[in-house]
Amino acid sequence: MGNMMLDDLLAPKSVAVIGASRQPGKVGHELLANLINGGYKGAIIPVNPKASQLLGLNCYPNLASHRNSVDLAAIAVPTANALAAVREALDANVKSIVILTAGFRESGQEGARLEEEITRLLKSSGTPLLGPNCLGVINTSINMNLSFARSAPLPGPISLFSQSGALLAAILDWAWLNRLGFSKLISLGNKAHLTEVDFLRALATDEETKVICGYLESITEGDLFIKAAEQAAEKKPVIIQKVGTTSAGKLAASSHTGSLAGADMAYGSAFGRAGVIRAESFEELLDFSMAFSMQPCPKGTRVAIITNAGGPGVMAADAVERDGLIPASLEAGSIASLRSFLPPAAGLGNPIDILGDADPQKYRSTLEIVINDNQVDAAIVILTPQAMTSAMETASLLAQADRAGKPVIAVFMGGKEVKPCYPELLRQGTPVFASPERAVRAIKAMAKYEAWRRRPVRIVTHYPVNRRRAERVFARIARQGRAQAGEAASKEILRAYGFSIPEGALALSAGEAVEIASRAGFPVAMKIASPSVIHKTDMGGVRLGILDADGVRDGFDLLNAKFQRLFPGAPLDGIYVESMARRGREVIIGMARDPQFGPMLMFGLGGIFVEALKDVAFHLAPITADEAMAMLKSTRSYQMMTGARGGVPMNLSAVAEGLQRISQLVTDFPTIMELDINPLIVPEGSGPGQVADARITIGKELKT
Amino acid sequence: MGNMMLDDLLAPKSVAVIGASRQPGKVGHELLANLINGGYKGAIIPVNPKASQLLGLNCYPNLASHRNSVDLAAIAVPTANALAAVREALDANVKSIVILTAGFRESGQEGARLEEEITRLLKSSGTPLLGPNCLGVINTSINMNLSFARSAPLPGPISLFSQSGALLAAILDWAWLNRLGFSKLISLGNKAHLTEVDFLRALATDEETKVICGYLESITEGDLFIKAAEQAAEKKPVIIQKVGTTSAGKLAASSHTGSLAGADMAYGSAFGRAGVIRAESFEELLDFSMAFSMQPCPKGTRVAIITNAGGPGVMAADAVERDGLIPASLEAGSIASLRSFLPPAAGLGNPIDILGDADPQKYRSTLEIVINDNQVDAAIVILTPQAMTSAMETASLLAQADRAGKPVIAVFMGGKEVKPCYPELLRQGTPVFASPERAVRAIKAMAKYEAWRRRPVRIVTHYPVNRRRAERVFARIARQGRAQAGEAASKEILRAYGFSIPEGALALSAGEAVEIASRAGFPVAMKIASPSVIHKTDMGGVRLGILDADGVRDGFDLLNAKFQRLFPGAPLDGIYVESMARRGREVIIGMARDPQFGPMLMFGLGGIFVEALKDVAFHLAPITADEAMAMLKSTRSYQMMTGARGGVPMNLSAVAEGLQRISQLVTDFPTIMELDINPLIVPEGSGPGQVADARITIGKELKT
Repeated sequence: MGNMMLDDLLAPKSVAVIGASRQPGKVGHELLANLINGGYKGAIIPVNPKASQLLGLNCYPNLASHRNSVDLAAIAVPTANALAAVREALDANVKSIVILTAGFRESGQEGARLEEEITRLLKSSGTPLLGPNCLGVINTSINMNLSFARSAPLPGPISLFSQSGALLAAILDWAWLNRLGFSKLISLGNKAHLTEVDFLRALATDEETKVICGYLESITEGDLFIKAAEQAAEKKPVIIQKVGTTSAGKLAASSHTGSLAGADMAYGSAFGRAGVIRAESFEELLDFSMAFSMQPCPKGTRVAIITNAGGPGVMAADAVERDGLIPASLEAGSIASLRSFLPPAAGLGNPIDILGDADPQKYRSTLEIVINDNQVDAAIVILTPQAMTSAMETASLLAQADRAGKPVIAVFMGGKEVKPCYPELLRQGTPVFASPERAVRAIKAMAKYEAWRRRPVRIVTHYPVNRRRAERVFARIARQGRAQAGEAASKEILRAYGFSIPEGALALSAGEAVEIASRAGFPVAMKIASPSVIHKTDMGGVRLGILDADGVRDGFDLLNAKFQRLFPGAPLDGIYVESMARRGREVIIGMARDPQFGPMLMFGLGGIFVEALKDVAFHLAPITADEAMAMLKSTRSYQMMTGARGGVPMNLSAVAEGLQRISQLVTDFPTIMELDINPLIVPEGSGPGQVADARITIGKELKT
Repeated sequence: MGNMMLDDLLAPKSVAVIGASRQPGKVGHELLANLINGGYKGAIIPVNPKASQLLGLNCYPNLASHRNSVDLAAIAVPTANALAAVREALDANVKSIVILTAGFRESGQEGARLEEEITRLLKSSGTPLLGPNCLGVINTSINMNLSFARSAPLPGPISLFSQSGALLAAILDWAWLNRLGFSKLISLGNKAHLTEVDFLRALATDEETKVICGYLESITEGDLFIKAAEQAAEKKPVIIQKVGTTSAGKLAASSHTGSLAGADMAYGSAFGRAGVIRAESFEELLDFSMAFSMQPCPKGTRVAIITNAGGPGVMAADAVERDGLIPASLEAGSIASLRSFLPPAAGLGNPIDILGDADPQKYRSTLEIVINDNQVDAAIVILTPQAMTSAMETASLLAQADRAGKPVIAVFMGGKEVKPCYPELLRQGTPVFASPERAVRAIKAMAKYEAWRRRPVRIVTHYPVNRRRAERVFARIARQGRAQAGEAASKEILRAYGFSIPEGALALSAGEAVEIASRAGFPVAMKIASPSVIHKTDMGGVRLGILDADGVRDGFDLLNAKFQRLFPGAPLDGIYVESMARRGREVIIGMARDPQFGPMLMFGLGGIFVEALKDVAFHLAPITADEAMAMLKSTRSYQMMTGARGGVPMNLSAVAEGLQRISQLVTDFPTIMELDINPLIVPEGSGPGQVADARITIGKELKT
């Protein structure tokens, strides 16, 4: 979807309203009235066969007279007439369409069929469609309120898309009261054609949009979304509230990775990588939009607190610490400057308590000194209404203060005395909140985004591997029609990707087993290999530490007999014979492919740590060396891996390399749905980890 | 402090204002003006030697003419005259005093001295004092606004004490805007005499107070506070926001317990036991006060969500799940009733989506059916402003709905269209929030309080122990002037309290060591015992598994020599010789005495779990059997202790009993500051745990 196309939709020079109506309360009426009353700068073409005039404009029976001249057709006819209206619009060669009409997919099977038919029509004609079942689209810079929302927004730097029309209406209503301005507002509706991905791309390059804000209930194409979001976040803040969870069932629950990773985890990981600011609640969505649209991001995390009341200052300091920010320590020069005009009882640490009788000028002077301090990255200014407080004048003077390009957030606590100052502060571009905790969370989000923007370049190591060989194994498995690569095949694939694998092979007879064991070297392990047996340990299908040829022969017979008894008639690939893995620390590394965001890598210490303690780290592939090491460090058991506190040290870089090699493998082969190396045996000192057991689950080829 | 005394202060029949002033802006003026303008029902006696009339009242040069007739004297003179004013009030036999004047402890040493002198005076006369340095006191039922706050509150069921005057002012200001009513408001100021404990007690028995709400920066006497809070919580909800942290340094950092337990943990544990509802932020303090004062608590955790918009419904459902509440499943009958009048497209699961065009009557009928459903404990009603929405009328009808004695919380999202409904909803007693997440948190707090109220009776087991013997050991240590009971003495004490201790004793010669070892039975352990050696393992002062007499002799000589080399001239108690502890699982149990709340018990699995994984549980003593078992269950490693997932099972009740016995010991002996049993060896099957090593740190006797 090119950008030009969305310009027709987001900034049309002419709008046709198909289904325009003279009857107040009808969508077709409200839409036309809002468009006219908003002062839309382009041409308005009401279409209604039963009227010649509507709200003072010429009305047309159809678009025959406007062939090739309509940028955007808004359709607000009854559901039953929607298909005909779309055909009419296409016949007139309109450049884009928004369907406000409801009654499609959201209302059942019949609606879904109609929606599909319309979407097919539009896709084949290459005409972009917003909706159906949406509130419309607003662009304040051309005074276009093409929506049936009651409140039209003020112009401003935020553009917002919302999958819930009702929520968009609530935000508009809230914004109006708080004087928060918007550039574009897009109600996504059923997302039959255009989705969040298209608007992320469009808004990223839109110069009028300084902050992108989105409310989503589902993300249709996770990988495209993340790519578009990351590209947008490079240019401007992208704040997303994602509600609901994808069906956890979609992540197959059969492997460790699958059952531990949740959908929420996948979103967190994906958003974090893409630099998306995630709003955890509706309030955060509004708070963050306000803060990001009005203030620069802090260059660091050192926060100064200015207050006229001790208690709220302590609250703010608590929140700063709790949220992992740093309470700023003022330079001596700043403290001396403050001392020169603040009363002796004033607190000059942090919080800086300018006392209950602080007048507006004291607020301003204090802020200027504090924000210009080199040890300060951001400031929170708290005001409570006390006997001498002039809240409104303080609001004005705060705006005039020199802020040295750093963010300042106001916290005006109270109601009657302070709420009237909110519009004033916001008008001047100072975000204001009712509690210190919310101000601190906003600064944290801003600092996190800034840190992401300054992140080092990601360099994904590309290991030389034998991709062809892995391809041949996958092809073989595909020919067999199997969903599981057993241990032997999985190890073959992993060996091709540079993993160290104990020497071994499948044996079909006791003699062959002895031959393999002799070649591999004693002691050996023997394991049943059958597509019917997934948990071979559970069925007693594994024998370890076999010391000689007699033991191998006995082992072969025993495993064979046990298999025939437990799985009569099931196919047996053979008995896998291999040299025992070297000694070392057991770790588990793996991958589960998230339906939205693709391959999610997983790491945990073996034994109790994954199973009982759920001490597991996740990261989306592809992964860099630094990110892999950060995964290890993010586990609670990290200290133990370094040998501290009674732990056994191990070669951490071998684990990190294993994760990167898996990352490369699952990126190369989208057919891999799940992969588990359990365990990888990692030596204490140098040297690679060795794969003691592995399993790969294969799905339908997704994409390459 | 009896209740009657506080009645003089909280509900005086006569108030003298010492330092009453004719000059607007002065505290003595604002105070008098507020008292008069508020319509105070009692007698007002302005005191000012320079005036005969003030604001229409007779003014007196002093209180000589009012001996024995003043219930409450409010002092608002300059700091320098405060002491004289107090003397004057005491001479006139006033029954209680509030000092609003500032300039005391908060302003430095001189002020602190003055404050101490005044407090001494008042304590010796038995006259209760509120303040100094406070905003005053308000009682709406007698129209008493004895404060210099700008906004007087509406009458209502909430009583609030605040350690920050500024915050009290902000709350008043906020409450005024939101039409939230109060009974008593108390500004604690410097808490020179009366503290939160006194007001908790007074408000607990005050029939006009339905909800107690407090903002605290410090808690002076933790144990008294908890006792008073628990007694109050039995009668009515007690909501406390506690900011700041006690100095972590006060908890000695030398033992595991001390360094793991934080002050915040102590507050959490203490509040939880006492049934105190902890507000984590200023917003929660206001939100919870609103919810608790207006609605009954839910009997369970099943929450129904009614909404006219899908998105916010999903937000609420997310929050319900995240906060550990249960999304209610409606009964078939309720669903049938809803279907009879809701449109076919309405969602009848939970959230119950009554669609965007829902009118007020639909809201009311839906609420009545849902809240009367036996599967529903509480309901959240969400409204977003849409084309057909009548927010104000909906607010009215919601109030009229039959609610079956269950809590209903409204979420009206937006601004211009919905904010005007807030006062209407609140006036009718329906709490209303701007986001679903806040409504869910309020319901969670209410459900938690209700569960606490219905908790089973706590029965603390009292084990028969040899308290005398422990007393003798403590007396011996006290005579030695030691701060540490070494291993031998600690084990003696623990044995007296019923712990299983390996047979052993201190040896002063190699021969004695052999004798002890033979009596105890081989193999034995040998350990250096010296007050100079706290970490004996670190210095190589422990030898384990010695098999025979020769080994004991060698061990004695070796440990002795090592000690003389490493600690030349230090005192040596001897070498502790004991039989090796039985085999079993190692756990750590211990106690650190919190300066605020007393003995904090601690438990963790031995080895990596405490040190590396910080997998530790805490609980205040005294502890019941159920609570001890709950401590074990609250660790991440609990599964492993039951033998699940590769863990080794162990006798959990032996650990629980150990915790209870420690609980009894540290309650009996407040001199114990810290206690560590590290490890306690717990058998797999039945039988008690055995103390392999232990250490007790002794402090000054605190109280008994």
